[in-house]
Amino acid sequence: MLNVALIGLGYWGRNLLRVLSGNPRLKLAAVVDLRPDLKEKLALSHPGVAAHDDVAAVMTDPAIDAVVIATPVASHYMLARAALEAGKHVMVEKPMCASVAEATDLMARARLYGLNLMVDHTFLFHPAVRKLGELVHSGALGQISYFDSQRVNLGLFQPDVNVIWDLAPHDLSIINFLFGCQPIDVEASGYRHFDRGSADIAYLTLHYPGNLIAHLNLSWMSPVKVRRIAIGGSAQMAVWDDLNRDEPVKIYDSGITFHPQQDRERLLPSYRIGSVHSPRVAGPEPLVEVVEHFRRVILGEEACLTDGAFGLSIVRTLEQAQAQLDANFSRLGTLGPQEGTAAMRAVDQ
Amino acid sequence: MLNVALIGLGYWGRNLLRVLSGNPRLKLAAVVDLRPDLKEKLALSHPGVAAHDDVAAVMTDPAIDAVVIATPVASHYMLARAALEAGKHVMVEKPMCASVAEATDLMARARLYGLNLMVDHTFLFHPAVRKLGELVHSGALGQISYFDSQRVNLGLFQPDVNVIWDLAPHDLSIINFLFGCQPIDVEASGYRHFDRGSADIAYLTLHYPGNLIAHLNLSWMSPVKVRRIAIGGSAQMAVWDDLNRDEPVKIYDSGITFHPQQDRERLLPSYRIGSVHSPRVAGPEPLVEVVEHFRRVILGEEACLTDGAFGLSIVRTLEQAQAQLDANFSRLGTLGPQEGTAAMRAVDQ
Amino acid sequence: MLNVALIGLGYWGRNLLRVLSGNPRLKLAAVVDLRPDLKEKLALSHPGVAAHDDVAAVMTDPAIDAVVIATPVASHYMLARAALEAGKHVMVEKPMCASVAEATDLMARARLYGLNLMVDHTFLFHPAVRKLGELVHSGALGQISYFDSQRVNLGLFQPDVNVIWDLAPHDLSIINFLFGCQPIDVEASGYRHFDRGSADIAYLTLHYPGNLIAHLNLSWMSPVKVRRIAIGGSAQMAVWDDLNRDEPVKIYDSGITFHPQQDRERLLPSYRIGSVHSPRVAGPEPLVEVVEHFRRVILGEEACLTDGAFGLSIVRTLEQAQAQLDANFSRLGTLGPQEGTAAMRAVDQ
Amino acid sequence: MLNVALIGLGYWGRNLLRVLSGNPRLKLAAVVDLRPDLKEKLALSHPGVAAHDDVAAVMTDPAIDAVVIATPVASHYMLARAALEAGKHVMVEKPMCASVAEATDLMARARLYGLNLMVDHTFLFHPAVRKLGELVHSGALGQISYFDSQRVNLGLFQPDVNVIWDLAPHDLSIINFLFGCQPIDVEASGYRHFDRGSADIAYLTLHYPGNLIAHLNLSWMSPVKVRRIAIGGSAQMAVWDDLNRDEPVKIYDSGITFHPQQDRERLLPSYRIGSVHSPRVAGPEPLVEVVEHFRRVILGEEACLTDGAFGLSIVRTLEQAQAQLDANFSRLGTLGPQEGTAAMRAVDQ
Repeated sequence: MLNVALIGLGYWGRNLLRVLSGNPRLKLAAVVDLRPDLKEKLALSHPGVAAHDDVAAVMTDPAIDAVVIATPVASHYMLARAALEAGKHVMVEKPMCASVAEATDLMARARLYGLNLMVDHTFLFHPAVRKLGELVHSGALGQISYFDSQRVNLGLFQPDVNVIWDLAPHDLSIINFLFGCQPIDVEASGYRHFDRGSADIAYLTLHYPGNLIAHLNLSWMSPVKVRRIAIGGSAQMAVWDDLNRDEPVKIYDSGITFHPQQDRERLLPSYRIGSVHSPRVAGPEPLVEVVEHFRRVILGEEACLTDGAFGLSIVRTLEQAQAQLDANFSRLGTLGPQEGTAAMRAVDQ
Repeated sequence: MLNVALIGLGYWGRNLLRVLSGNPRLKLAAVVDLRPDLKEKLALSHPGVAAHDDVAAVMTDPAIDAVVIATPVASHYMLARAALEAGKHVMVEKPMCASVAEATDLMARARLYGLNLMVDHTFLFHPAVRKLGELVHSGALGQISYFDSQRVNLGLFQPDVNVIWDLAPHDLSIINFLFGCQPIDVEASGYRHFDRGSADIAYLTLHYPGNLIAHLNLSWMSPVKVRRIAIGGSAQMAVWDDLNRDEPVKIYDSGITFHPQQDRERLLPSYRIGSVHSPRVAGPEPLVEVVEHFRRVILGEEACLTDGAFGLSIVRTLEQAQAQLDANFSRLGTLGPQEGTAAMRAVDQ
Repeated sequence: MLNVALIGLGYWGRNLLRVLSGNPRLKLAAVVDLRPDLKEKLALSHPGVAAHDDVAAVMTDPAIDAVVIATPVASHYMLARAALEAGKHVMVEKPMCASVAEATDLMARARLYGLNLMVDHTFLFHPAVRKLGELVHSGALGQISYFDSQRVNLGLFQPDVNVIWDLAPHDLSIINFLFGCQPIDVEASGYRHFDRGSADIAYLTLHYPGNLIAHLNLSWMSPVKVRRIAIGGSAQMAVWDDLNRDEPVKIYDSGITFHPQQDRERLLPSYRIGSVHSPRVAGPEPLVEVVEHFRRVILGEEACLTDGAFGLSIVRTLEQAQAQLDANFSRLGTLGPQEGTAAMRAVDQ
Repeated sequence: MLNVALIGLGYWGRNLLRVLSGNPRLKLAAVVDLRPDLKEKLALSHPGVAAHDDVAAVMTDPAIDAVVIATPVASHYMLARAALEAGKHVMVEKPMCASVAEATDLMARARLYGLNLMVDHTFLFHPAVRKLGELVHSGALGQISYFDSQRVNLGLFQPDVNVIWDLAPHDLSIINFLFGCQPIDVEASGYRHFDRGSADIAYLTLHYPGNLIAHLNLSWMSPVKVRRIAIGGSAQMAVWDDLNRDEPVKIYDSGITFHPQQDRERLLPSYRIGSVHSPRVAGPEPLVEVVEHFRRVILGEEACLTDGAFGLSIVRTLEQAQAQLDANFSRLGTLGPQEGTAAMRAVDQ
């Protein structure tokens, strides 16, 4: 049975702990984290799992077959590289790492060593995304013209990344999954409202081949949580509202057709407003599927859906967006709020 | 009593007809429109109102004191100019005209002739916008950091303008009213999905003095209608959902405060999630208020809230956004869909 | 062309005025109402329509073919009877009249004189009710087991009827239309919160043949308006939310099936939770259809959907419910709030 | 430290297991359940907790101070009685037991033996119910005139109780908590749609002293889940929607006032439609509070909020409702669907 080690017990790491230890077809052998009471707590809750405060313990343990990395983004590269060098398969949290250079290096190493490198883009295993995939891939929506995402809520400021690196990977991975293509142009704008902080609001506009435009509205500053993706097609349109418990996915049998006029100068639009269909969207917990997929990928039973190349494609777009954001900040001569005018400034005294 | 002529009986013109003829303190003397059965219909429904198919009839009529122009944007300038030259006060539909040059010229003429020039930015008379104004101007929201608007629905393609000139004036006028300032930077991106069409989706990002960022998501291509403005302040946040009949305006007593840490390197955010308050929002029909305001402005009883300078400020931003959109289209080497690949192309045969 | 007179210009009467005068295939010849300025107002807005303050004027006018009665319920019987005796076809607002005795008498007279007697149960011409009719009559919902209606909002206290006579006719007419049957048992309970008032909250439970149970929750005392009907069938369930602009009718492909167990003592339920479908519900204004139906019924072009027998069936159920309510009030020894303890008593001093 | 035993590991029992073992101020010493693999599973997940398949093991164990009973209702009485006779404090799931006779007997025994008898009416520890309590008890709502609850969803048919005994205890306990009074009259009607089944839809109308009317709409047959309580007061009205994540409690500053007229014959109502306020509703998990309350009650630190008398008051109303339901079924000559006409009958072949 596959022996797996988990590095990092933050918010998502705790979910991985639960799911890894709940999969009867693999063995969670060790957990690495720095918090002082780890050993005691784990001994109580997961008696058979070793607890370490040093990654070396798992890297040098020949019994460990695979490592799952759930640490801050800045450390992804070094940890994944160390694990690959130690001959272990790797699953790393999204985003895969902090730059295209890092991602390319990791991919090359995995290939060289003949190891699997997978990125945990959990949303690709979400039943609603699977349903959207069916709709897009079957042609039910027709030719897709836009992808519009609003992903905003209050807070969860990340210490090491800005709102783009935090939230955009979700949408970018879904776009890649649905349309299988890379943006030909990336625009990004945003704002940071706090001194010494990173961008907390960002708007991304992405142009894709085939006349597809994507737009992401990302924010840590909204009092209301919104998780809503709209996809417009020539035949139908679909909206996924992740907070709508009863009807998360709606398919609108609505559209616009343009009719040429006699004189060929102008087209007359006609609107079709039809019924709305909300398919049953249900399935196992996505992370359970992710972990099982990782296991099967290692055993050669399945091709990896979110391999290094997939993860790299996301990081490339993030890097492009970051460059645009930086250019915009420079052009505007302001890296956020000015001293003395900070909109919502820190309580400094 | 003031004698008013109305030019144009399109969608909004018919509303103006109803409201102008319903105001007992002014007299709607004449209507100009080209549709053939105008005379008969008007004779039946508004027996005392003269019907013309030529604007000259009202321009040359010395009994007419003021002209209301509700025609396509392209004709605003010529008609407003003619009316001013004929010595008549003018109220023109939004946007005021098609360029800054036109707007400047109209303003100069109005000043020169001592006439009133007003733009019908109806939303400034909407009770929900008035309520937002109270919240912003009283300081109840604290320092404002963002304005985020989603204004999308299916269709109503305009023949003579793109989605920016059609929908952005609403948000721009509200921003001007709330914050009293002009953008220091305008970004615009968009897409046109149909041959020979104009942009039907557009995203505007506007930077304002005082660390305010505004974002407009405008579309004629959404199967679901959304009319939602979120305003984030340091003290509270407000959301206006124009389609929520029962609770259109919600005030969230939520926010984020940053606390400096010992080492001064990093700030620790704390989130405050408080109650939600939905004030009663009610009042007379906004257009009724607009028409009455125009009357009082002419009589010198009120200072004009949406005068030529106000209208010009909107047109300036629209012109900047259009320039950015054009630059973007050029850069991407595509003015919309390519021949043969049009996403939702016209049914040509 | 049919000459019609309208009696009563209250809330609904004004709608009838608009619709009757807008139907080009009949002529609204006269209006009767007691308000003093009727003649002047009508002369302005409807120049060709005679204005009277006495019903005798239309009853004795041989040019009038049909009379539409939109007065308080208490006067329905006398006016409808007078019109029938004068040889005129009659359409009367719902409920048809105040008792079964009155209804039976009107039906007999209409039959005797060979005149049409129609009740304006407008909802039967509503596109959503038509859609529900399709679903029930086609068998798409399977065998129906329950009809559950919530019809509550704040106020609109009627001076002459209680909440049952005001609101229940809507649901009762829809039940009759959908299922074509009369209740075999009527339970009613309610409350009157104000001295000298009538019941402002009422609950009706109706048992129908074929194992159908219907429940109506009626109130003038709810701060939130709700207009929601749920219909449960063995195959599917449908919900009509009249305040949901975008998706008023939803069809749930959900249900419960019971499987017998080996020992035949107990059944094991299995739940099916499927997709939700919201058909496009659109159509002409119901009242326009009502008026046109009345015209065609008189001309013999259509059989009357809501004739005297239909109206009588509603009145019979109302009478039964009233009797139950009265019995309940008597049993509880209280006809509403006691002196000195009135929940929301009148401001008496 | 208090030693507690838990009897029953069904749906709610598993929640109690989690919460009892998570409370550091008491010790979960033993669990009793009949499922065969209990010992193995519990040894893994809760190493220190003894597992038994016979209640005698805990009843005869002098180290056990208190017993928590989470078994089907029919067994509550015998188990609670045995525990009391064995000198143990008892917390029993709601409803307390199956009859007033049983409840009275348990109360008498608890008093006689000087032991605590508590019923787990969890909702009384729910932050939303606490908020409603504040609103009612502070007088903020004014005098209360109605309590209207809709508690419907699909399924969860209980084998041993009907929909009244399953769902009504929630509302009845909330009413008791809010208003501190017992109904002076209970009406109940309902339906059972399946052969050999119990009532799956029920409507309860309860009259309380002080002119308060309560209505419960209970169903296992609704495709849409609704958990909504509306409380109408003379000053304000409140609605709790348990499925509204963001704004579960809304307070409507709306109402009706009646003004007497000169002639004293009729009152003129005036409607006040004001703002809506949604207070922040948050707090610890209710069941955690229940368990901690039970601990403190045993230690004499707190008076029991839901003692035997409270539990009895709920059972009394349930018994009255059942009697009314039975009488109704008898009167209608049908105990549910007839052979051959079952609305949604079992798939028998």
